[in-house]
Amino acid sequence: MPERNRQIVLKRRPNGMPVPEDFAIAEGALPEPGEGEAVLRGIYLSLDPYMRGRISGVRSYARPTELGEVIEGRVVGQVVRSRDPALREGDYAAGGYGWQLYSAVPAGGLQKLDPAEAPISTALGVLGMPGMTAYIGLRDIGQPKAGETVVVAAASGAVGAVAGQLAKRAGARVVGIAGGREKCRYVAEELGFDAAIDHRGDLGPALDRACPQGIDVYFENVGGAVQQAVFPRLNDFARMVMCGMIAEYNDTSPRPGPNLGAVIRKRLRIQGFIVSDQRQSFGEFRAAVAPLVRAGQLKYREDIVEGLEQAPEAFIGLLQGRNFGKLLVRLADDPTR
Amino acid sequence: MPERNRQIVLKRRPNGMPVPEDFAIAEGALPEPGEGEAVLRGIYLSLDPYMRGRISGVRSYARPTELGEVIEGRVVGQVVRSRDPALREGDYAAGGYGWQLYSAVPAGGLQKLDPAEAPISTALGVLGMPGMTAYIGLRDIGQPKAGETVVVAAASGAVGAVAGQLAKRAGARVVGIAGGREKCRYVAEELGFDAAIDHRGDLGPALDRACPQGIDVYFENVGGAVQQAVFPRLNDFARMVMCGMIAEYNDTSPRPGPNLGAVIRKRLRIQGFIVSDQRQSFGEFRAAVAPLVRAGQLKYREDIVEGLEQAPEAFIGLLQGRNFGKLLVRLADDPTR
Repeated sequence: MPERNRQIVLKRRPNGMPVPEDFAIAEGALPEPGEGEAVLRGIYLSLDPYMRGRISGVRSYARPTELGEVIEGRVVGQVVRSRDPALREGDYAAGGYGWQLYSAVPAGGLQKLDPAEAPISTALGVLGMPGMTAYIGLRDIGQPKAGETVVVAAASGAVGAVAGQLAKRAGARVVGIAGGREKCRYVAEELGFDAAIDHRGDLGPALDRACPQGIDVYFENVGGAVQQAVFPRLNDFARMVMCGMIAEYNDTSPRPGPNLGAVIRKRLRIQGFIVSDQRQSFGEFRAAVAPLVRAGQLKYREDIVEGLEQAPEAFIGLLQGRNFGKLLVRLADDPTR
Repeated sequence: MPERNRQIVLKRRPNGMPVPEDFAIAEGALPEPGEGEAVLRGIYLSLDPYMRGRISGVRSYARPTELGEVIEGRVVGQVVRSRDPALREGDYAAGGYGWQLYSAVPAGGLQKLDPAEAPISTALGVLGMPGMTAYIGLRDIGQPKAGETVVVAAASGAVGAVAGQLAKRAGARVVGIAGGREKCRYVAEELGFDAAIDHRGDLGPALDRACPQGIDVYFENVGGAVQQAVFPRLNDFARMVMCGMIAEYNDTSPRPGPNLGAVIRKRLRIQGFIVSDQRQSFGEFRAAVAPLVRAGQLKYREDIVEGLEQAPEAFIGLLQGRNFGKLLVRLADDPTR
């Protein structure tokens, strides 16, 4: 165990697409656990699109990261010290904080993990926040019915892959949009979507071919040109599950959106959600999805980069669509693999 | 009773704001009732914003009016001939069709009216489609709660006046937007809204003053500049009841809408509806609202123009916001007044 902590802090607010110089490495003493806290040694750090909002400095549903602060992030790791009876040294848990090797966090915020149940990394992906995002978005807004057509943006990503597979299980025709031929092949062949569309091609005609009955549910992770192509193809009573708009996160001024007249004519429902509002549904989500993952009926893919120092580059790659599957940073060897 | 029918037909599709020359008067024989039909002699014709969509020729949720056809509209009148046992000569009923003096319609589509219960004209306004539109929009989408702030566009209009008063009864703070000082005074003083804003003024600061807690429900009847001013002031979890966008009905190309990123950050719900999808709720609506109208607890105002020939001018005035209250055309004397 090293004597010191290491973290990535926000050096400068990005202007448009982040660059490595917006981040800096800082070293410091190992954190001390307060009463009721545990210190987690990180094994996996999750990189997710929402982090772009946190470092922008814009007040939103969450407090922005201040300059000099460690970047927000969710970590799976191993307890190295505990001042709470519920956790012991050596326990695996999800809920560590930030782009850093060690964090001291309230034990009540940690989710103990049993490596025999599922790989511990899945607590950051298919069985964690991204998987639950897909589940909640479909449960509360998308509500796909058998025979309906569901289009999922960023379909090979951590959220999209789960959303599409769950919609498929609900009996819908599911069409994924992804970037590049390899991801499209994965979506159609491995994840079992009915069709996959490369957003680098001519999206409109491709959507027309893949969705001959129009679109009833759009799971929005992307915004931009994908949203523009999908919107006019929505059917009457269609639902837009507004989950993310990663293609616009680096915009310095907002693009115009669709004219809302169609919302009336077609009785559309466009609704946003934030998964953390639904913490009380975590048990329901796990109960529904964990058995599918264990049985191999719900597939997932991880894209793991090595070492905390790689986090900024990997995060920039995520914003550019360069990752392929749930993006994780390995902070230390995973003793359970 | 005249020997012949008279109607206003669509002569030419309007390009932008309709002009009188887009309409023509036609005369013809009195309609004959088929088996199960009745002939209604119109007393009141309802003029409503949705008609602009019908004459545009664009396929929407309803069939467009063809050139030479009578313009669509809902009529209250008196039965002059009946070939259905449920209706007798002299009965009052709502459900006559079109901008014309007489129409033959299926008796099953007519709603018999008791003039002792409420003025028959109300079946086209506060107790008819516009009132029900307000009721359904709040019931299914707006769902105002006590203490929330509800903003109603076109607040002195047939729909807005009911929406605001019902929201007020639900315990919300209600702010109306209307055109001109006289309408604003009516909204605040007679309808009892908490505040009224003239959309001809500087809307943003006026909304800030009238809605110090932000906006939780926006009942959208207008679009355009009003929507632009309201949208950034919506609170987290706000609902946009998408009912109409009259300010844009004469646009020849659609204006850009709001960027939908805020829908995610604020967990907004933007949902459209068409009251005719909810026909099965008419009894519920009447049971809820008719007693309030009879007791004088829900106020309404009618703007009545005289004579079928005035319909085109009055309709153009409606699109320009010149009416003040529910716009009706008197086709014949009302024997019940």
